[in-house]
Amino acid sequence: MLGYAHGLNTAVETLRWREGSLEMIDQRVLPDRFEYLSYTSATEVAEGIRSMVVRGAPAIGCAAAYGVALESARLIHACSEVFDAGMETGFEVLATSRPTAVNLFWALNRMQTVWDANRHRSKREIADCMLAEAHEIFSEDVRNNRALGAYGAALLSDGARVLTHCNAGALATAGHGTALGIIRSAVETGKSISVIADETRPFLQGARLTAWEMVQECIPVTLIADNMAGHLMSCGEIDAVVVGADRVAVNGDVANKIGTYMVAVLAQRHNIPFYVACPLSTIDPGMPEGAAIPIEERSAMEVTGFRECQWAAKGVQVRNPAFDITPAGLVTALITEKGIVSWPNAEKIMRLFGV
Amino acid sequence: MLGYAHGLNTAVETLRWREGSLEMIDQRVLPDRFEYLSYTSATEVAEGIRSMVVRGAPAIGCAAAYGVALESARLIHACSEVFDAGMETGFEVLATSRPTAVNLFWALNRMQTVWDANRHRSKREIADCMLAEAHEIFSEDVRNNRALGAYGAALLSDGARVLTHCNAGALATAGHGTALGIIRSAVETGKSISVIADETRPFLQGARLTAWEMVQECIPVTLIADNMAGHLMSCGEIDAVVVGADRVAVNGDVANKIGTYMVAVLAQRHNIPFYVACPLSTIDPGMPEGAAIPIEERSAMEVTGFRECQWAAKGVQVRNPAFDITPAGLVTALITEKGIVSWPNAEKIMRLFGV
Repeated sequence: MLGYAHGLNTAVETLRWREGSLEMIDQRVLPDRFEYLSYTSATEVAEGIRSMVVRGAPAIGCAAAYGVALESARLIHACSEVFDAGMETGFEVLATSRPTAVNLFWALNRMQTVWDANRHRSKREIADCMLAEAHEIFSEDVRNNRALGAYGAALLSDGARVLTHCNAGALATAGHGTALGIIRSAVETGKSISVIADETRPFLQGARLTAWEMVQECIPVTLIADNMAGHLMSCGEIDAVVVGADRVAVNGDVANKIGTYMVAVLAQRHNIPFYVACPLSTIDPGMPEGAAIPIEERSAMEVTGFRECQWAAKGVQVRNPAFDITPAGLVTALITEKGIVSWPNAEKIMRLFGV
Repeated sequence: MLGYAHGLNTAVETLRWREGSLEMIDQRVLPDRFEYLSYTSATEVAEGIRSMVVRGAPAIGCAAAYGVALESARLIHACSEVFDAGMETGFEVLATSRPTAVNLFWALNRMQTVWDANRHRSKREIADCMLAEAHEIFSEDVRNNRALGAYGAALLSDGARVLTHCNAGALATAGHGTALGIIRSAVETGKSISVIADETRPFLQGARLTAWEMVQECIPVTLIADNMAGHLMSCGEIDAVVVGADRVAVNGDVANKIGTYMVAVLAQRHNIPFYVACPLSTIDPGMPEGAAIPIEERSAMEVTGFRECQWAAKGVQVRNPAFDITPAGLVTALITEKGIVSWPNAEKIMRLFGV
């Protein structure tokens, strides 16, 4: 399963372009099965995002970009009216696939800009431009993860025991990962790092994906249930927390996988640094604070069990918010490809964008 | 499945005495199956405790008491040497079945005292005394839960949305429950109470047992993953937290199911009262503070999946502490059968014992 994409070494090819189609690892069945599913239209990709074949904010952004590119190629022989309408539907179906991760909208905006700039050209030329932009978004993501990984690696001391929540690894991105990218970069510099992985109910991204990525690379990884993180902190067994993000508001509030907020509150209590790895594509310049970020509520079946294994008492009601908001005051630093933002606030974040 | 034990209305008969044997609901297979398993010796009961057929601190205490009574009856025709040796082995095997819940040792101490006081009598008389004491421990537990339920009910306002962790219900006790006993008592007084149940990984006592108990009684109950509690608190959707306890130290530190500590820290941050329901049998007068309470570490298989459904990546290491310590400073009040102890400390707790 080792591979290379666009000349960048990415040990896990979460998404890959193959002969006019997008292939994505089916993350719903990892680690039991390692399989690629193939996509040839925006609607198919949107369903892949919705059903969490692909997940993780940067990976969702890349998938959506390829979804638009696929749609333009699929409509290449249509008349202009059908092409335009199809493209608009494609953008819409992708934009409504999941609500919280801003990378989705960021990537779609980039694709929209390229489309707008090339509408006068032939449909084949448009399709080529769309695919080139999708490839660029993909390649940038790997480069940015490498860059932020290097910045973050410097924050981890040799021997650090690092707690992470959910999966912000290669599987959540075009490659290398954000939170796990920092860990990989630290290990590459010769540091001994061990990972404590929250299992991350209900979708179990920690138990299935983070553990799998770390085991593949022989980075020591210990799995815990989400409710054990506080106990390990109180026992002095966690030196740092590194998580990813789905959307960061201008004031530094962080939307990330449900449970991140509890980890951040406990980290503060125990004076453990709480780092958020986020490429700039995860920061939403239009979102003043976390309270306004839409929180996706997913199916009850995810909480009453896992896959076909259903254990909850019949008749129980269920809540299933997929994300929560960690206030900026709990964030020791944002780690971006443009550097580290300690104790983030609006002024520091806008400076990243050159504003 | 409705039943009565010793004249006390207990909707769920977690343990029941039937013609010389102890029957216990197999809580490992609830709510899929409702089955009793039958026990006739101390060794069998110890295995039932170890494997979590029965769990919950007060229920474990009752089970251990019946285990000793069963052993004395089983050895009734043995010679004195065999009887004495068998009884000692019975006490030992029960005492080493699980380490954290103090009710186990409390109940065994009571049984030991009765045995010591009656050694001069016939083995049949000893067996009768042991069974009478086990019945008394059982009946006291229900009465105490009723008493503490009434005290606790007064703390919950009409319409309260109450978060609970794990199962401190009828299934964790001889009947009525401690944390859920408070909720039941509040409902009995006419208050409208809704329960938010943490699923409580890895054994899922919340999803399987608390949800089941509440659904049975038509008390509204909403299931969440453990990592969602903080988000609901931040959204203003939790009015109070009520949990049980496995052992309370003299200074008020509380050992309870893993994850309780994180809930308590979040409750404090959101100014939500955090109540611990505990009969005096759960307070350990010999334990000065929580740090010295032994924390059981259970099997990795519980964390890598649930039952036969195993989902974690192969090769991952696992930690599985079954309990954690909530410092007294996070406890708004202990609720006991002798009344409410606000902001518990050693002086207030020793006063409960008349010291």
